[in-house]
Amino acid sequence: MRGIIKAKGAILYDEHGGEYIDGIASWYTSMYGHCNAYILEKVQRQMEVLDQVVFSGFTHEPAIRLSEELIKILPPNQHKIFFSDNGSTATEVGIKMALQYHFNKGNQRKVLLAFEGGFHGDTFGAMSVSGLSVYNGPFEDYFIEVERIPTPTKDNVGDILKRLNSELELESIAGFIYEPLVQGAASMKMHDADGLNVILELLKKHQVLLIADEVMTGFGKTGKNFASDHIDVKPDIICMSKSLSAGLVPLAVTSCTQQIFDAFYSDEISKGLFHGHTYTANPLACVAALSGLELLQSEQIQKDIQRVIQSHKEFGLKISQHPKVATIRQCGIIFALDLNIKTERYGTLRNRLFNFFMEEGVFLRPLGNTIYILAPYIITNAQLSTIYESIERALDEVV
Amino acid sequence: MRGIIKAKGAILYDEHGGEYIDGIASWYTSMYGHCNAYILEKVQRQMEVLDQVVFSGFTHEPAIRLSEELIKILPPNQHKIFFSDNGSTATEVGIKMALQYHFNKGNQRKVLLAFEGGFHGDTFGAMSVSGLSVYNGPFEDYFIEVERIPTPTKDNVGDILKRLNSELELESIAGFIYEPLVQGAASMKMHDADGLNVILELLKKHQVLLIADEVMTGFGKTGKNFASDHIDVKPDIICMSKSLSAGLVPLAVTSCTQQIFDAFYSDEISKGLFHGHTYTANPLACVAALSGLELLQSEQIQKDIQRVIQSHKEFGLKISQHPKVATIRQCGIIFALDLNIKTERYGTLRNRLFNFFMEEGVFLRPLGNTIYILAPYIITNAQLSTIYESIERALDEVV
Repeated sequence: MRGIIKAKGAILYDEHGGEYIDGIASWYTSMYGHCNAYILEKVQRQMEVLDQVVFSGFTHEPAIRLSEELIKILPPNQHKIFFSDNGSTATEVGIKMALQYHFNKGNQRKVLLAFEGGFHGDTFGAMSVSGLSVYNGPFEDYFIEVERIPTPTKDNVGDILKRLNSELELESIAGFIYEPLVQGAASMKMHDADGLNVILELLKKHQVLLIADEVMTGFGKTGKNFASDHIDVKPDIICMSKSLSAGLVPLAVTSCTQQIFDAFYSDEISKGLFHGHTYTANPLACVAALSGLELLQSEQIQKDIQRVIQSHKEFGLKISQHPKVATIRQCGIIFALDLNIKTERYGTLRNRLFNFFMEEGVFLRPLGNTIYILAPYIITNAQLSTIYESIERALDEVV
Repeated sequence: MRGIIKAKGAILYDEHGGEYIDGIASWYTSMYGHCNAYILEKVQRQMEVLDQVVFSGFTHEPAIRLSEELIKILPPNQHKIFFSDNGSTATEVGIKMALQYHFNKGNQRKVLLAFEGGFHGDTFGAMSVSGLSVYNGPFEDYFIEVERIPTPTKDNVGDILKRLNSELELESIAGFIYEPLVQGAASMKMHDADGLNVILELLKKHQVLLIADEVMTGFGKTGKNFASDHIDVKPDIICMSKSLSAGLVPLAVTSCTQQIFDAFYSDEISKGLFHGHTYTANPLACVAALSGLELLQSEQIQKDIQRVIQSHKEFGLKISQHPKVATIRQCGIIFALDLNIKTERYGTLRNRLFNFFMEEGVFLRPLGNTIYILAPYIITNAQLSTIYESIERALDEVV
């Protein structure tokens, strides 16, 4: 186990003097760079004033301002903000919203729809809708009932619609949870916006609530603020976390439409959405998030995002010609390539690749036969080149 | 909704110039006082060096030191530390440990045992084992199978043991999750250590894993470091959060014995415990927790704890004589009184009491007909007197 003692910008420093480019932005969180001075200063100032207070009956400026700023950049149908602590709880809240929305309206809709191979978290509700099943053996007896469809391709979308059409007649599906455009844990598997759009359109027509899990894709990674911005049909519920709080401390948000909020607004206490973690809307996390949003919308970071997108494109053109590369794919600053050999998700080749990259000063986490890059926006061109060259060498020397 | 703009020590400040004694330490988190200079300085220093890094394949000093310091003060059978983000995820991890422990050993144990009226969190697994059911209507179809027993009294413990004895023959119960000594959300309902001890003894004899949810009771509140320190039979798994990170940012830990760890340690990947949130073992949260542990073990805070305990005792003697008080109870610094009238959990009287206290500059959250105090350890004697006097006036003027 390698001890990390320091991080700055795109670089991690270990206890033995090693330096590593954080090629996955510490699980897609530290997009504005580690120990970002602008963010630190704001959080340190907040810390001196108000560290934490019960978020029930009370409110505070960082939570109000963050809600307002989020609503400004979220798809225009999003009106309400619900806070929690991490991606798992963000999706649990989304799932509870969808099930209880129909329950409160007296509808008998208790099934959720999800993509095959999706990942939405590790708590029981979040595990239920996740499709990476090797981990779930001991817990499956207690999962929410879930129907799964493949992610859309030009070839299969007709079949998906046909199957859904007959299922939707039963009026049993409460909500559809999906990672729009990119399935992170499924090795950055991508699907196209048009296919997703026609699926969402059909589901919306049948009152299936659309729950976009943007925990990984949110806040600029697809080249727009949200992956949902690439798709005409807007989600009813959006789950956010990871880079929401700019890589500083845990924070999550589940946003929803006015229509969903209204279904919970009642004098009957049992119609309320009961979900409140102790540190909900923690002021320090809210200020980190506010600083992150400021940076995200700055000219500099928007330029950086375009720069990284362009850089990946050029690398993609080149590396796709390599004989050991089967396919490449890119969505915004997310770049992935598949090796043209079969391998296990956490097998030997994966470990050899990981170690090779670390030896070269590059922190990447290959998944099975996929090598992907999801670096901080502030990564320099020189650092990007180091990653690309290291991948090229890995193809020649390790694979 | 009242806007809180500042907090210092035991005081919350609102946007209209109001000041309130935080009589519940912001949901039992800010035990060393809000914006504690010692803690802030340590966290600010950490922030400049290492804010966040993937906690998989990597480790860091704050996480290692926190693990070591926790093991020193946890019951001696606790050997391993598992990080997550909040009380709900701490119990989800505990539940997963118990179910998968038996699964990995090939045992057919899929039922959990819990106390009636317990509260363990808001995610699906945590909701399953919680007994406050008014909120759970839309989700109950998907809960883990749970058997419930009442909390022990001198009168009922014989019956509980008899019932358990016959159920335990089925060898179906994987684990027992319990809030030791005090059930927080159940209006600080308390039970005695002797009764709990004989129940735990019987369960342990039958290989039922004991999961102590010390999210509320942990870190000094019962007068010892953990409620489990008052009980001879030690838990196999302990869930911690809230004041673990000293009221600064979200953090949770689930600790376990070597025996449990060993049941997961295998080359078979499906035997591993797959649960990892993105900000797991966040360095800033770990440093906040380390600073909190230092303070907890300081002579000053240990003195403060004894001072508050003694102060509550004296108040208890006095207030128990009041004609509108049915019963009082105390466990460490947790003090509660029940009014001798029936009322709803969130009914009108509860709201009138809440507003009365706020008018008097005291932040308390009565639950039904229970008024409880769980103040920061650093609360002054004068502030305690203000709370007591306000409660006395409320009994006379509001109830």
